[in-house]
Amino acid sequence: AAPPPRKMEEYGRFLALLASALLVGFASVVFSLVWVFHYREGLSWDGGPREFNWHPVLIVTGFIFIQGIAIIVYRLPWTWKCSKLLMKFIHAGLNTIAMILAIVSMVAVFDFHNAKNIPNMYSLHSWIGLTAVIFYSLQLFLGFAVFLLPFAPVRLRAALMPIHIYSGLTIFATVIATALMGVTEKLIFSLKDPAYSAFPPEATFVNCLGLLLVIFGALILWMASRSHWKRPPEENAKILRPIGETPEGTEAESTMTDGSNADKSDLRINSEAARKQNLKFDEAGQRSTM
Amino acid sequence: AAPPPRKMEEYGRFLALLASALLVGFASVVFSLVWVFHYREGLSWDGGPREFNWHPVLIVTGFIFIQGIAIIVYRLPWTWKCSKLLMKFIHAGLNTIAMILAIVSMVAVFDFHNAKNIPNMYSLHSWIGLTAVIFYSLQLFLGFAVFLLPFAPVRLRAALMPIHIYSGLTIFATVIATALMGVTEKLIFSLKDPAYSAFPPEATFVNCLGLLLVIFGALILWMASRSHWKRPPEENAKILRPIGETPEGTEAESTMTDGSNADKSDLRINSEAARKQNLKFDEAGQRSTM
Repeated sequence: AAPPPRKMEEYGRFLALLASALLVGFASVVFSLVWVFHYREGLSWDGGPREFNWHPVLIVTGFIFIQGIAIIVYRLPWTWKCSKLLMKFIHAGLNTIAMILAIVSMVAVFDFHNAKNIPNMYSLHSWIGLTAVIFYSLQLFLGFAVFLLPFAPVRLRAALMPIHIYSGLTIFATVIATALMGVTEKLIFSLKDPAYSAFPPEATFVNCLGLLLVIFGALILWMASRSHWKRPPEENAKILRPIGETPEGTEAESTMTDGSNADKSDLRINSEAARKQNLKFDEAGQRSTM
Repeated sequence: AAPPPRKMEEYGRFLALLASALLVGFASVVFSLVWVFHYREGLSWDGGPREFNWHPVLIVTGFIFIQGIAIIVYRLPWTWKCSKLLMKFIHAGLNTIAMILAIVSMVAVFDFHNAKNIPNMYSLHSWIGLTAVIFYSLQLFLGFAVFLLPFAPVRLRAALMPIHIYSGLTIFATVIATALMGVTEKLIFSLKDPAYSAFPPEATFVNCLGLLLVIFGALILWMASRSHWKRPPEENAKILRPIGETPEGTEAESTMTDGSNADKSDLRINSEAARKQNLKFDEAGQRSTM
């Protein structure tokens, strides 16, 4: 049977947003490459400016684009037939790749600074950037230990899921903010004659890269925060609700048994409220068909 | 009758977070004042650096601190007995103050630039900052027209509310990111001997201001995104649900009638799903009392 038209419309809307996010994300990566190859010295690992150039390329590619995709990977409708365990491995795997690229990109900067006798860790960019990498690693480690390994009790998973989601989105936004600071620093330091303020083509081009990063972040956050685009709970769901809590984004499955019965609890309201709201909805439904 | 202990615990947790946000936000304002009075030239409106200094002070005070409070004003439990209309006026009023302060702070920079023959609008900071102010003004205008004036149909309000919430939070995060770029620019431009990279006290102090802004943003976003801290829907709620949509943050009330019967629809699931989930929850409830 064909899905109802309303579902199809939602699906189309999701695909349009996904295509936009992929396009903007891909454009950001291309912009970072054009920046370092056309306007700067290119890439190599020699302690010079070409080693520094790995920093923006790897941050945009790994810590922004790949992290963004990792965030929305559960939302892709064609993955809903895959086991939740497989999707968790993909989510964790993409985030691991992003973390490795972020760390390599930091090593490139430290190497470059040390070779040139430039002090490390003095700027707000470096303070917030390093904090973001540390929190990201913690998030990945905790996510692995709690949601992927089969030892954490279901109750703990349910309690930590909203925090995991919030931290993930906040770290992602912070990484983009840090990249904008990095772009600002790099343009001020490297554009001398003509200066940043004289509107050379490189300045305009890299400002556009900054705008693309903001748009990419906004698209990912929109897709990640629409609850109707969530992976639907599986039929053989195990349900758990901490009493009195709103388990938005709660996951009540267990990888202790096996991947195929993994699911996500989608309960959002307590039983009494649900009954009331059902009543209200039925009223509204009747009204709307009048 | 005293509220149940679970509710009291939630209330205590909310108060602790609110106190932290107020403390961090207030500290940010104090830091911005210490920056311009202790480390810089102070404040005045004379086309010189003292006019520029209004920029960070007004942005931190208005566009960040006051905007942050405006975002969470519906969540304050002691306002739940006030009419929704009154709270909307407070929300809109605080956002209007924030917008005016943001505009004045931009005028200060343009004035300063023009007096010193520094070009305007060349930096990524200025591009994203101006975009944020334009979107913020649009958001305020649309919010006023749709949610405060009594003309918009309930259906339109319900459809626009999730977008209003998402835009509001995204603009807020973007404003903080823009402030971090501004801090970066200003420290690079104004610290010359010793330079930013030589760790002068001003650099460390203003980096700490940047960290405070990130923490303030993170606290506000946490408080704003916990659905169990939402203003509860009123008894005489008018209910409307666009069919097949998940109206997270939907508001279904009308200011057309009067403020006192204003409410927020809290329906999150369609009728069939609600029934299923009720069943599941009832099962879970039985299990948990076993």
